[in-house]
Amino acid sequence: MMKKEQIVSPWEVSDEIDYSKIVKEFGVELINQEVMSKLKDAPAVLRRGLYFSHRDLPLFIADAEKGKKVSTVSGRGPSEKMHIGHLIPFIVVKYIQDKYGCNVYIPVSDDEKYFFKKELSEEQAEKYSKDNILDLIALGFNPKKTFIHTDFGYTKIYKYASLIAKKVNLSTAKAVFGFSGESNLGMVFYPSVQSAHIYLPQFLSGSHRTLVPIAIDQDPYMRILRDVADKFSFIKPSAIHSKFLPSLSGKAKMSSSDSSNEVIYLSDSQEEVKRKIYKYAFSGGKDTLEEHRKSGGNPDIDISFQYLKYLFESDDKKLEKIEKDYRSGKLLSGELKEILIEKINQFLKEHQKNREKAKKILDKFILK
Amino acid sequence: MMKKEQIVSPWEVSDEIDYSKIVKEFGVELINQEVMSKLKDAPAVLRRGLYFSHRDLPLFIADAEKGKKVSTVSGRGPSEKMHIGHLIPFIVVKYIQDKYGCNVYIPVSDDEKYFFKKELSEEQAEKYSKDNILDLIALGFNPKKTFIHTDFGYTKIYKYASLIAKKVNLSTAKAVFGFSGESNLGMVFYPSVQSAHIYLPQFLSGSHRTLVPIAIDQDPYMRILRDVADKFSFIKPSAIHSKFLPSLSGKAKMSSSDSSNEVIYLSDSQEEVKRKIYKYAFSGGKDTLEEHRKSGGNPDIDISFQYLKYLFESDDKKLEKIEKDYRSGKLLSGELKEILIEKINQFLKEHQKNREKAKKILDKFILK
Repeated sequence: MMKKEQIVSPWEVSDEIDYSKIVKEFGVELINQEVMSKLKDAPAVLRRGLYFSHRDLPLFIADAEKGKKVSTVSGRGPSEKMHIGHLIPFIVVKYIQDKYGCNVYIPVSDDEKYFFKKELSEEQAEKYSKDNILDLIALGFNPKKTFIHTDFGYTKIYKYASLIAKKVNLSTAKAVFGFSGESNLGMVFYPSVQSAHIYLPQFLSGSHRTLVPIAIDQDPYMRILRDVADKFSFIKPSAIHSKFLPSLSGKAKMSSSDSSNEVIYLSDSQEEVKRKIYKYAFSGGKDTLEEHRKSGGNPDIDISFQYLKYLFESDDKKLEKIEKDYRSGKLLSGELKEILIEKINQFLKEHQKNREKAKKILDKFILK
Repeated sequence: MMKKEQIVSPWEVSDEIDYSKIVKEFGVELINQEVMSKLKDAPAVLRRGLYFSHRDLPLFIADAEKGKKVSTVSGRGPSEKMHIGHLIPFIVVKYIQDKYGCNVYIPVSDDEKYFFKKELSEEQAEKYSKDNILDLIALGFNPKKTFIHTDFGYTKIYKYASLIAKKVNLSTAKAVFGFSGESNLGMVFYPSVQSAHIYLPQFLSGSHRTLVPIAIDQDPYMRILRDVADKFSFIKPSAIHSKFLPSLSGKAKMSSSDSSNEVIYLSDSQEEVKRKIYKYAFSGGKDTLEEHRKSGGNPDIDISFQYLKYLFESDDKKLEKIEKDYRSGKLLSGELKEILIEKINQFLKEHQKNREKAKKILDKFILK
């Protein structure tokens, strides 16, 4: 039997991913207990291993602990609607902001989406950006220390991108991103814009350590951009890499282009959440009640459990009990789903309220 | 004997150029008397054939004559100092502005120079822009109808360039501009910025005819950008193409990277002009006074005469007399040079004064 080749690039992610192989291939380091011990009260995504590898994370923490200026960056490629998986890096940067009192920069790449999505108009891309930004503000960022921009709104990014573009040649970009003759000129230029996003804190307020939480498929950008740091006397950005939060049916990477039954949108109603989880969340439970009671479920492949683990049940003791009860067969699949539904709906109710409030304070966050 | 291949691309111009071959190769049309009869009182560069070919010039004139909205665009790739050859397209757009009362757009591409000149810093590119803009304003444009911008100053251009970038693929750009793996990402993106410059009048004030005077080596840009007009419901820009004004020693294209003895800078002192013309202006005169008096000089290859013809002697009768006297041997080479020196110095004295005044009104011209 032929084994499918594992593909992880910014544009393609294969369904089954061997993360330990990636660590070796990409030349990144695993996040270990020693590093994690410095990040007390970290959110579940960090504490429970969804972020599994890093570049220079200890150096970032060391500077932050010493009270040196640090900042953090997390970009958003805007989509029609955000789903819960999209929140993961923003949960991390919010935690870092709260812990170290540092600036958060959020570049929203309407240009990227416009270049890469054939049918997307520029107006749509800008509309998506405006929509997504409200969801981000709803997470509770500090307006005094949070700087959000879109590329078509904050076109000054072109100047910063140009500074980087001069240092990256077409061969390198092709090797890393696999551009072809069919790629449009915007796609080809975009790696310099992305790099400018990551260096924006240093362009705007001088050389300092920055942390960038990214999904592992975005790491090629980090390799290109870390190479040019010296040319600007910048400090190479630190990164932490997350695995993909699986879709409801268990696909490796949730995607906004999936069927809407594969993901929970931040705009979903309580009823939609209920329906989707009941109907589509892949279960690690047994086929019959009798069998489940007897030999128990498998939380490791159970999507509801995974969502609780990484996003919705922050209490370690409660999660432990859920896991134990599910494994033993005491907790049924339907009951596990109910726990998740309640948690998600509680979160979304609050989120949707905060999103309405965000409309009024939007302007405080926009980088001019 | 092998004939050198004729090269005319935006980056390379061979020393000997067969313009009739270019007309055929580039698929452009010669400017004929019928067209020229519409352009009464045109400046010498137009009237005396330095502009030799066009795309859609009659359509532009027709719209202008009907009183429809038209505009004209001429870009400047900033250099340390401008020389007299650089003025040619601006003399044309000023004439068009005066004749039809239309807007003139002047994009100054500091980004282009930054991308293409290896050693040039971004600060230097911006400094060159500021310097060159003063020389342009000194020509006497109408501040209410003239819009000058630099790309690093007016970064909104990035959005317009992006709209075009999505419609041009890497193959096309490579075919037209000959990019290689060594080309940096800024160079590769730049054709979309250049296109955005030419479409800026239509982006900013809706579809209408525009005229772009360019040196013939810039025509590849026109071919790429005319192809995308339909995608924006824009009107394909009209163009007129100039031959190169030869350098003092007679090289086909004057270049700011030439030895400073090859060109007359707008900042040259009266003494410098005198010295350069006397010493370096290639003469069509005979070697000895006796021979010259006997068989006369050749104005067709005489640089001083060429400069008078295209730039400094607008009076047809006076020019005719100079030509006749030179051909007959009545006018000596040194005397011809004296006429040119006086004309240039008269122009530069006025220009340098106007340039000082330009500093005070600069802001009225800058597109925000």
